[in-house]
Amino acid sequence: MKTLIVYAHPESKSLNGSLKDLAVSTLRTAGHEVRVSDLYAMNWKAVVDRTDHEPDASGRLKVALDSGRAFDAGTLTPDVLAEQEKLRWADTVIFQFPLWWFTMPAILKGWVDRVFSFHFAYGVGEYSDTRFGDRFGEGTLAGRKALLSVTAGGSEPHYSDRGINGPIEDLLFPIQHGILYYPGMQVLPPFVLYGADRLTDEDYPDIAKAWTQRLLTLESTEPIAFRQQNSGDYEIPSLRLKEGLEPSGRTSFGLHLRD
Amino acid sequence: MKTLIVYAHPESKSLNGSLKDLAVSTLRTAGHEVRVSDLYAMNWKAVVDRTDHEPDASGRLKVALDSGRAFDAGTLTPDVLAEQEKLRWADTVIFQFPLWWFTMPAILKGWVDRVFSFHFAYGVGEYSDTRFGDRFGEGTLAGRKALLSVTAGGSEPHYSDRGINGPIEDLLFPIQHGILYYPGMQVLPPFVLYGADRLTDEDYPDIAKAWTQRLLTLESTEPIAFRQQNSGDYEIPSLRLKEGLEPSGRTSFGLHLRD
Repeated sequence: MKTLIVYAHPESKSLNGSLKDLAVSTLRTAGHEVRVSDLYAMNWKAVVDRTDHEPDASGRLKVALDSGRAFDAGTLTPDVLAEQEKLRWADTVIFQFPLWWFTMPAILKGWVDRVFSFHFAYGVGEYSDTRFGDRFGEGTLAGRKALLSVTAGGSEPHYSDRGINGPIEDLLFPIQHGILYYPGMQVLPPFVLYGADRLTDEDYPDIAKAWTQRLLTLESTEPIAFRQQNSGDYEIPSLRLKEGLEPSGRTSFGLHLRD
Repeated sequence: MKTLIVYAHPESKSLNGSLKDLAVSTLRTAGHEVRVSDLYAMNWKAVVDRTDHEPDASGRLKVALDSGRAFDAGTLTPDVLAEQEKLRWADTVIFQFPLWWFTMPAILKGWVDRVFSFHFAYGVGEYSDTRFGDRFGEGTLAGRKALLSVTAGGSEPHYSDRGINGPIEDLLFPIQHGILYYPGMQVLPPFVLYGADRLTDEDYPDIAKAWTQRLLTLESTEPIAFRQQNSGDYEIPSLRLKEGLEPSGRTSFGLHLRD
């Protein structure tokens, strides 16, 4: 495998840092190639602004159009071009981050906002009576796998089916489906550690064992069965799931899983 | 009303900029006080790091504990303290931003990550057999109302009950419930504009009319009926909704709405 690890935590001696280091050593020992984007160490620029699209920015900045024009012209900034190149190189992308306020830290959101430019991650493909672009299962990053490895402060029941935070799979849906599956990646079930702030050094060996196990079985792990947009399951252009395709009782985000 | 508008768009002449300006003028003309946090204009620091918690940061940075210690000591950075003061001053908080990758832009997430410190927005209140802190309907920001005003690139059916993006109310749940209701704010139904990139100047008068209407009726608008955490609806400490409280067929995020 060629694995890119995108890592977002400000403290290298954190649990997230340890999990990132363990992924690097485990995968390399198993003979895989690994590259790491350590966003804090890179001092990653988190905020989209017109300096991202000069000299192709409109007088009145239009983020989508201008990022697409800069992408087409090859004038996106070097940091963004380097990340796009890493994504093209990789066959597997691991995201290691703490869940802050039920989603990714700002620095990682800023990586998505800037790297996933128009014409790279969206605005790709043909729009017709039977296709609505290359999106949700097709696109620039098709053929690649993605995996979220996240730590959460709350305990597991809080993120369970009836838990007050909402089920973890639904909290992660906007990332797993909306960000990763959108440009074509297959998304593996996430690796989630709960109660992260209460874990102690004594807990770490079991955590390391579980994470190592996931890392060494990535190639045989079944991805989440999201429905491909242009497979015939959706009306075009409304992109509403056709009636009757879902198991009874399935609603909302759950509709977009195949049986 | 005392309204704080938190605004996150890099282009002042954008639709988001126009909606922010319209909110300021409409509310002031109606006799209300308005303050604006224009995050791009403020060059808001989006990324949490140890400079946020000096001199109270641990040798090994712990974001939650260290932000709480700095909050208690009054040593959070001046930009964060100013935002916390604005939130205490306000009775209504409007967030104006474009939906980028199904959630807020990085600069706004970084406002949440830094301003919503431990002991301010979380880690507040008593933990006992009947209470699990002041959270989800109680907390530092109780008594205040919050409203999201967002623009989305996709068209409305894409965000409908069967739409491929997921229903808008569920995409916004991690923000509305997880970020705003968590420290106690009552959340009003969002103001959402779809197909934002395809809107033209001819569409603007109707948009402005609808937004003005929402702004002038904020005080009489019913908030989203999220269930208060310590109301008796949840088991403590698992925070699972007690069996049988929900209307039949309601699952996932929808469980956390009262009838």
